[in-house]
Amino acid sequence: MGSSSNGVAPKVDKGVDYANYFCTYAFLYHQKEMLSDRVRMDAYYNAIFENKHHFIGKAVLDVGTGSGILAIWSAQAGARKVYAVEATKMAEHARQLVKTNGLEHVVEVIEGSMEDITLPEKVDVIISEWMGYFLLRESMFDSVICARERWLNPNGVMYPSHARIWVAPIHSGLVDQKKIDYDRAMDDWYHFVNETQTFYGVDMSSLSKPFTEEQRKYYLETSLWNNLHPNQVIGKPAVIMEIDCLTSSVNDILSLQANISSSITAENSRFCGFGGWFDVHFRGRKESPAKHEIELTTAPSEDFGTHWGQQVFLLHPSIRVSQGDEMTINFSMYRSKENHRLLEVEFGCELRQSSGKSLPSFSKKFHIE
Amino acid sequence: MGSSSNGVAPKVDKGVDYANYFCTYAFLYHQKEMLSDRVRMDAYYNAIFENKHHFIGKAVLDVGTGSGILAIWSAQAGARKVYAVEATKMAEHARQLVKTNGLEHVVEVIEGSMEDITLPEKVDVIISEWMGYFLLRESMFDSVICARERWLNPNGVMYPSHARIWVAPIHSGLVDQKKIDYDRAMDDWYHFVNETQTFYGVDMSSLSKPFTEEQRKYYLETSLWNNLHPNQVIGKPAVIMEIDCLTSSVNDILSLQANISSSITAENSRFCGFGGWFDVHFRGRKESPAKHEIELTTAPSEDFGTHWGQQVFLLHPSIRVSQGDEMTINFSMYRSKENHRLLEVEFGCELRQSSGKSLPSFSKKFHIE
Repeated sequence: MGSSSNGVAPKVDKGVDYANYFCTYAFLYHQKEMLSDRVRMDAYYNAIFENKHHFIGKAVLDVGTGSGILAIWSAQAGARKVYAVEATKMAEHARQLVKTNGLEHVVEVIEGSMEDITLPEKVDVIISEWMGYFLLRESMFDSVICARERWLNPNGVMYPSHARIWVAPIHSGLVDQKKIDYDRAMDDWYHFVNETQTFYGVDMSSLSKPFTEEQRKYYLETSLWNNLHPNQVIGKPAVIMEIDCLTSSVNDILSLQANISSSITAENSRFCGFGGWFDVHFRGRKESPAKHEIELTTAPSEDFGTHWGQQVFLLHPSIRVSQGDEMTINFSMYRSKENHRLLEVEFGCELRQSSGKSLPSFSKKFHIE
Repeated sequence: MGSSSNGVAPKVDKGVDYANYFCTYAFLYHQKEMLSDRVRMDAYYNAIFENKHHFIGKAVLDVGTGSGILAIWSAQAGARKVYAVEATKMAEHARQLVKTNGLEHVVEVIEGSMEDITLPEKVDVIISEWMGYFLLRESMFDSVICARERWLNPNGVMYPSHARIWVAPIHSGLVDQKKIDYDRAMDDWYHFVNETQTFYGVDMSSLSKPFTEEQRKYYLETSLWNNLHPNQVIGKPAVIMEIDCLTSSVNDILSLQANISSSITAENSRFCGFGGWFDVHFRGRKESPAKHEIELTTAPSEDFGTHWGQQVFLLHPSIRVSQGDEMTINFSMYRSKENHRLLEVEFGCELRQSSGKSLPSFSKKFHIE
């Protein structure tokens, strides 16, 4: 227990990890997409400038600074020194941006991975925008924990300070579309098997089973990015994980088990699966609270969508539900063996209708890719 | 210069290479796409079954067997033994397919990279479908050369035996579309720079130059996959490289320089850039020729398109040309420093109008990604 990351995370080949993951963040286009997310930008901007007391005269560490925006804001809010760490070549652009904004005497951009670099001092604030899809995809919080263990002063503050993952039953037309796509892919396959036998004398039928598995995974067993409309949420959202960024360890986020319940709130609807999202809060810490607590939520919203959207986990077939039906969900999530930045989740589900009748329980696994 | 590969190719991190490259080929969906390419399939099928004398009683090596189709055909054509080498997990499917088709006594599937594995004997035929976009993208021919140097009998035969790369001046509406896309991306950027200054107090203008370069590269300086209609080819195609698969070395294909000329054949057209493609031939070798020579071409075709399509290199702005205009092209190509499987090309171009007037020469670089 405790907050040491005691070597549980598996060894990662850095070159492979870079090829698979970091290269995306080396494009300014991608940085621009994130910098154009007004919900994300407003939350961090307000968190910093409405809580200047955390920054004035302080040392700040920005983990994964990207183009450097959080480091620059921290400096503008009065930080004495900001260390802005970035693993990709984006570090060069960040350095340029710091200079153009006249802050090179405060912000020091360090190109390297958090796990490797060394700072000349401990810091009072660690700020980072580390959240991936469904919060934990990308596993970047590992690097934030590493930074905290090594470089945060005993009374230091985490920005954000808390994070939560949510799920809720949803309605979605995608459930039909994905089934149609899958059926079409399989029709194509059987046509292909016939043609290959007829024209080229080779029997491909033994690949039908692995092909089916591959296509099922692709179309039916992988979560989707989606911007849900709030009225697609047909039941009460529930929290499946809470993270205190000041104390949680890599162990705490390596896997996750939760038993939650949700009641259907929509009248006569189709339960098509689950939507998942996260929120984070900027509350400072008990000994040094925020003056203005800020929330950044990626919940379904008509007007305040984010680039994170929601993750959608579809059930085939969907299930008729009515207001007052009660759902018990046994949720689990762990990292993919093949790539520690991806996730596997499982929903075990029981549904008791408001009439008192229970439907057969079922469980379904998904990949978050 | 001899046919030894004498270590000129730079060292490659295998894990990174796998992440970047091989993983695509581990999907049956991708294999199916290639197996559904009738031009590709017919060429190899006919090359084998119309030249059974090369296979009957012989030992064959299939480099990068994928689902195993070429190995199975080789066995069906009468090979005594076929070694089918595959670097990805697709090897398991190939093994299954060999079994279903009753050929496990002939075809041995070996999972591993060509550079690492060992065969119990030398072979009489090396067969491989190694061709990437514009022939050399993916650099898979390196592995075929490695196989040939180590495992081909002195009188052995290469399938295919020869390869050529072609370019021709083309007309394409994409030249306008890409310019529009680029202009829109830049408009968005300047809007973004203004908003970030106004709402968040950060001056992003110093990133305008690198962002412009990134977007220029993406929209204007990277070749495109396209299935050209033959009437989009407005000048005489020219060969820029010929490979004798029996003798060429890695040195020979590491880079390429060619001076070619082409005359415009279309009346009053717009010269929008170049199309590039390849063909390969199955001719056996001088001492053991094919009975029926087979050609596989990926040239623009109304009815016989391939999954390779053509690579299109667009010029901005396009140039008015007329029948009889003469073009001199100084072509060069080399491997990308960042990723040896990708290519960089440069077209140096002079245009002499049929009136006798010469336009200013120009040169343009492209990435093949």
